[in-house]
Amino acid sequence: MAEVVEKAKAAREAALRLAKTPLKVRNRALLRVAKAVEQSEDQLLRANAKDMREGERMVERGELTAATLQRLKLSPSKVRAVAEMVRSVARLPDPLGKTVYAMEMDKGLEVYKVTCPIGVIGTVFEARPDVLPQIASLCLKSGNAVIMKGGREAVHSNRAFFELIKRETEAVGIPRGWIQLIEAREEVRELLKLDQYVDLLIPRGSKAFIQYVQANTRIPVLGHAEGICHVYVDEHADLSKAVSICYDAKVQYPAVCNAVETILVHSKLADRFLSKLGDLYRQAGVEIRGCPRARRILPWAKPATEEDWRTEYLDLVVSVRVVNSLQEAVDHINRYGSGHTDAIVTESKKAALEFVEGVDSSSVMVNASTRFSDGYRYGLGAEVGISTTKIHARGPVGLEGLTTTKYVVVGRGHVVADYVGERAKRFTHRPLRREWREALG
Amino acid sequence: MAEVVEKAKAAREAALRLAKTPLKVRNRALLRVAKAVEQSEDQLLRANAKDMREGERMVERGELTAATLQRLKLSPSKVRAVAEMVRSVARLPDPLGKTVYAMEMDKGLEVYKVTCPIGVIGTVFEARPDVLPQIASLCLKSGNAVIMKGGREAVHSNRAFFELIKRETEAVGIPRGWIQLIEAREEVRELLKLDQYVDLLIPRGSKAFIQYVQANTRIPVLGHAEGICHVYVDEHADLSKAVSICYDAKVQYPAVCNAVETILVHSKLADRFLSKLGDLYRQAGVEIRGCPRARRILPWAKPATEEDWRTEYLDLVVSVRVVNSLQEAVDHINRYGSGHTDAIVTESKKAALEFVEGVDSSSVMVNASTRFSDGYRYGLGAEVGISTTKIHARGPVGLEGLTTTKYVVVGRGHVVADYVGERAKRFTHRPLRREWREALG
Repeated sequence: MAEVVEKAKAAREAALRLAKTPLKVRNRALLRVAKAVEQSEDQLLRANAKDMREGERMVERGELTAATLQRLKLSPSKVRAVAEMVRSVARLPDPLGKTVYAMEMDKGLEVYKVTCPIGVIGTVFEARPDVLPQIASLCLKSGNAVIMKGGREAVHSNRAFFELIKRETEAVGIPRGWIQLIEAREEVRELLKLDQYVDLLIPRGSKAFIQYVQANTRIPVLGHAEGICHVYVDEHADLSKAVSICYDAKVQYPAVCNAVETILVHSKLADRFLSKLGDLYRQAGVEIRGCPRARRILPWAKPATEEDWRTEYLDLVVSVRVVNSLQEAVDHINRYGSGHTDAIVTESKKAALEFVEGVDSSSVMVNASTRFSDGYRYGLGAEVGISTTKIHARGPVGLEGLTTTKYVVVGRGHVVADYVGERAKRFTHRPLRREWREALG
Repeated sequence: MAEVVEKAKAAREAALRLAKTPLKVRNRALLRVAKAVEQSEDQLLRANAKDMREGERMVERGELTAATLQRLKLSPSKVRAVAEMVRSVARLPDPLGKTVYAMEMDKGLEVYKVTCPIGVIGTVFEARPDVLPQIASLCLKSGNAVIMKGGREAVHSNRAFFELIKRETEAVGIPRGWIQLIEAREEVRELLKLDQYVDLLIPRGSKAFIQYVQANTRIPVLGHAEGICHVYVDEHADLSKAVSICYDAKVQYPAVCNAVETILVHSKLADRFLSKLGDLYRQAGVEIRGCPRARRILPWAKPATEEDWRTEYLDLVVSVRVVNSLQEAVDHINRYGSGHTDAIVTESKKAALEFVEGVDSSSVMVNASTRFSDGYRYGLGAEVGISTTKIHARGPVGLEGLTTTKYVVVGRGHVVADYVGERAKRFTHRPLRREWREALG
């Protein structure tokens, strides 16, 4: 496993130089990648075809689901979409060198807080051929080196994208070694130990995998283990909005983290709402597991157990509970939820405010489907993942979550001794409105 | 140890309610605390006198240093300073509910990123009586519940401040249980396991203690293990600025994390600079450990070993190395430093820029002493600590580092199904300039 250490060391070396690479060079590299992706369509599709052939055999042997195989497929239109995504990252404003705090400490002594790259990002992600170019583009734009490990079913596609990106970016001056690929599962175990070289891990995958990562590394981890999302239908809800949001949040794409798993409905509305929604769900093949009061309205629903409130089905199954108040809904969500995405349907401004402030989740929706929780949809350009930890970056993580800050203090020979003791000079602490580079004169 | 779990649970319960407490109530509580601190001066001094008596016996037994005992002492002027600090935190703007991102996703569908408290903060800090009220004030202002463990030598002082703060804040409606005190060392071990209740740990103390915490918890940790700070004297340095900055950074207060440990000097300036600084250091009783070239200029200096470049002396000892270029200095700092605070002395704008962008540290100083690295001096009001991790908050951490964000999406019944497939609606992604509360109508 010496190889993983070498890769991490090389990434760390490159990161220090990449931090100083001007926006122009980073964008030029991205545009070159976009063009090369289009020109290499045939090669990329051939690499993906290999993965697909092996994937089909795995499906036959029952080692892979048909849905996973479907996500693995690269098409000409998907190749074009990848190129377009890379171009859109190039168009995003520079996340680096932004002055986010500027304060005069005293005449001629000024402090600035300036955005900068984090350093080396370690990522592990699922078998989808478009994920590697997306994460690589965001890391490059934000000046970070990246070590990537993709799902093994996408090994040929990933290698093809990796080699293309490495070649095209290093050709225009992006520091050699900024992008690293690892392929074996054992290499991930090794990567988790390298806290001296890797600054942040962004793992994507199953709950068990994320928990394994969190338990086995001292490197900070960004991501989410599961998405137990709720829709609460308030007593002041518009019934038709409530029904269409609950339908969309469960049926439109049930296998994803921002799909709803539990519906909470206020008792005053439960009868009318659940009979309407129940019919629609039944037609869509959704299995309902209800609390006793929900089952009095929908006798065909199965009984929900305590375990159901804690379960991420990722399937056409939903649990339903009737509550007596907004506070009861908020308490249920804070107790059983995963802090991912939770929604209220209500026409009451007061109820909306209470819900937003009371629910402790990374995204809170008012009269909108939980399925909107996504970096692209939020206008972040793209995302490296969704974070449910409350530290650093929370919710969909785009370029900003890939940066940190440093304080830059500019003086003229200032020493602390002048600011202590009997005749201490006083700090002025006057906020400034200028960029840190201007302070250098 | 069931008690620690109960305290953490209570803090978590309180945190959810504290998140909704208006600024007015949080400030009223802070002002009450300030007033009560002044009115309770006698009681606070009596509690501290107990600590001092026990501390003196510990010094006699060689269990405590005289310097630590000195820091433990509370005086009438220190009590007044604590009250003034609490008032200054009350005067700071509200860190909560700030809209930091606002984007129209589509007509009537808007996303906002809003600051909110982190939840429950666990803190462990050194034996100084003014630390508990400072950390408690910052946590209250930022809407966080806090579990505190102070140095055991300050046990009576901490208990007195804790009881005062708890009584005064809960009397005006701050949720009961928001502040918790633990006193035994074994309780800290227990606290580290409670990742389901505690969102962030801020430990202060020795390198060994910080590393122990990092190795034994799944809770994110903010802080720094050590401060191996550098001053680099560039070839374009003003000699007198260089000398006074290096003198201040070492001699003014050598026992603290932002004191300099290694001085790097460009070979072109080494002769003149080191002979000047050497004289001053010798008079101040500073021991110099130099590289061979430094020792040719200062023959009385001891030889520096590889180990010296990695050592935080926290004492009147300094290592000195002559380098041939700015890049060599930057490489030395990134290799041996701790990412805390590093300074360049130069009159060249180009050199300053190169140093700031090249050095991977939480604070970078240009022509100023490393000793300025401090939340109060930076104008943050106060600090809970200084972070050298690159995640979440870096450098001195004030109110902002005690907040996180949540995304709030406000729609009118919007569903994702309308934005996918053949006739998909397109996102408008038009940046907005308004606060999220306005979106509720």
